[in-house]
Amino acid sequence: MGANRYAVILAGGRGERFWPLSRAARPKQLLALVGNRPLLAQAVERLEGLVPPERVLVLTNADLVEATRKAAPELPPENIVGEPVGRDTAPAVALATALVKARDPNGIFAILTADHIMGDLPRFRETLAAGMDIAEGGDYLVTIGIKPTEPSTGYGYIEQGESFKIEREIEFRRVQRFVEKPDLATAESYLASGRYAWNSGMFIWSVAAIEAALLKHQPELGAKVNEWAEAAKQPTFLVELAKSFPAATKISIDYAVMEKADNILVAAGTFAWDDVGSWPALERHFPADAAGNVLIGDTAEVDSQTNIVYSQGRLTALVGVKDLIVVQSEDATLVCHRDQAQNIKALLAKLRAAGRAEVL
Amino acid sequence: MGANRYAVILAGGRGERFWPLSRAARPKQLLALVGNRPLLAQAVERLEGLVPPERVLVLTNADLVEATRKAAPELPPENIVGEPVGRDTAPAVALATALVKARDPNGIFAILTADHIMGDLPRFRETLAAGMDIAEGGDYLVTIGIKPTEPSTGYGYIEQGESFKIEREIEFRRVQRFVEKPDLATAESYLASGRYAWNSGMFIWSVAAIEAALLKHQPELGAKVNEWAEAAKQPTFLVELAKSFPAATKISIDYAVMEKADNILVAAGTFAWDDVGSWPALERHFPADAAGNVLIGDTAEVDSQTNIVYSQGRLTALVGVKDLIVVQSEDATLVCHRDQAQNIKALLAKLRAAGRAEVL
Repeated sequence: MGANRYAVILAGGRGERFWPLSRAARPKQLLALVGNRPLLAQAVERLEGLVPPERVLVLTNADLVEATRKAAPELPPENIVGEPVGRDTAPAVALATALVKARDPNGIFAILTADHIMGDLPRFRETLAAGMDIAEGGDYLVTIGIKPTEPSTGYGYIEQGESFKIEREIEFRRVQRFVEKPDLATAESYLASGRYAWNSGMFIWSVAAIEAALLKHQPELGAKVNEWAEAAKQPTFLVELAKSFPAATKISIDYAVMEKADNILVAAGTFAWDDVGSWPALERHFPADAAGNVLIGDTAEVDSQTNIVYSQGRLTALVGVKDLIVVQSEDATLVCHRDQAQNIKALLAKLRAAGRAEVL
Repeated sequence: MGANRYAVILAGGRGERFWPLSRAARPKQLLALVGNRPLLAQAVERLEGLVPPERVLVLTNADLVEATRKAAPELPPENIVGEPVGRDTAPAVALATALVKARDPNGIFAILTADHIMGDLPRFRETLAAGMDIAEGGDYLVTIGIKPTEPSTGYGYIEQGESFKIEREIEFRRVQRFVEKPDLATAESYLASGRYAWNSGMFIWSVAAIEAALLKHQPELGAKVNEWAEAAKQPTFLVELAKSFPAATKISIDYAVMEKADNILVAAGTFAWDDVGSWPALERHFPADAAGNVLIGDTAEVDSQTNIVYSQGRLTALVGVKDLIVVQSEDATLVCHRDQAQNIKALLAKLRAAGRAEVL
């Protein structure tokens, strides 16, 4: 547990795909979708023994700061920082770098996600620790690639090149290239080749390495790192941030830096990992009954097959139905065909157009 | 509005088929399924100008008396009488006869239902008035037969014989026979023949005529009429009823009397009538959208067809689903295939077995 090691959890995003459980004011990372605590709290817990709470920071949307503090009460309140507006991951990484730099210009830190589900936590921590050792030892941008367990078309992939080093039994390889979400045939060939890993969105680097990379590949944003680091030492920080952050270009860290830099290593993530992208993903985390139904909460069914039901507070009952996602939340119920989960966004657009802000 | 004319509305029954809106403590007749007031209140309203509230009585289950009084506040509270236990319609008719006899041994009364939906109310009232005229003029048991509009397999039928009389432009015919719910082919032949009417469960007769018929065809029950009529004049009536009513044989008035008596007339009911037996019946009373969805309450949908949604209080949203019944009540949600509505009873049996009285 090196004194200069930090973690910054990116906890923005609206989680529309878990409507009606997720809401604008209650996005996915604040829900206990799987497990007993909000996904964000689990992300903090996972760092136990590796990064102490006082060195764990969370970036979220400004309007979610209070709810985020409640969801992770073990963190000092000032460690939860709100972005004035969402600007994708590159500006978030620049801000994260600034926050760590303000505390320790020699800091090593991991960028982690708030809304993923993981298993094999000792292995996860070992991977992070090894990545931090590597990041401390040299000017590398380390990303964590997850060893694929199926030909998923829902993730981006990283093609891995030659082996670089084995550190704490974790293999680090050079990155050949980043690739977008593939079609099924391509995903199958990736899986068969053994050369590809899922792009997890988790990174490890030193303040110096990522600041240099930003300055090189995204100079305007790179210049913000030092500006925000200085501002972060002042009581007027949030006022300053509200002025300068919205001007940052909306771009992902993959596009802005990772696909361009040549000092990238990919750590072999062999722990269980799932980004739980939408309701059907719950099937991977809850047992099904003999008829293939995943029934969570207060539920009952007759003659029903292969449904996913998430019932909060009240009873949800099925009679003679098949292949549905049924979600009853505090103030709304969704009934969706399981192959149509991607259309929940269309429903929310319709509700938005109808001025139904109170259910969004 | 003859001074000796009464109406007794039979308002027992559990209405399981409208679960989760209907409950043991909130059966169908107490719900405003169609219209703005509970079906029972609409049944009382329908009598306006024909039978005044002080001569309208309601028989219900003892544990529903209070809720029934609230649902029809225009009736004097003492006019709502609770049966200690449910014993089907013959004992209910005997009790109704006793209650009217206690007030007026020369009374003429109609037995009406609490949970049906009707249209053409002037015609309905004219049919009742004509029936009461006939019942006042002679020793007849008058039943109302509804002119079928489709080959329904959900109703019993009455085969009509020769014409007896036209009264107030309503035709009264002799009854040939009562028949059980037919299969579709039989129902189609009934409809084509023009000789058959739906058995509505509504009757009109004098106290003397129905008491005599009960004494003749169901002597033990017939003897109760006078016993209960005398008891009804005493303050101890409900105590007496609690002792003697449960001993009555559980049998319908159709089996007990109507299928045996030879002084039965059937009035031609040409008003709109629907017993709204289960959720799919709502389709006959609410407009559908262009995709055939009947959406009642706070609802939203995307790419969904021919569903029936009844949403109470909260939002119910559909995405990419077809042929479902979705009902969101205060404390439970049902998702049922529209061809499986008859299996709601199986669901309730399962909940009962699981000790879930609070949702039944």
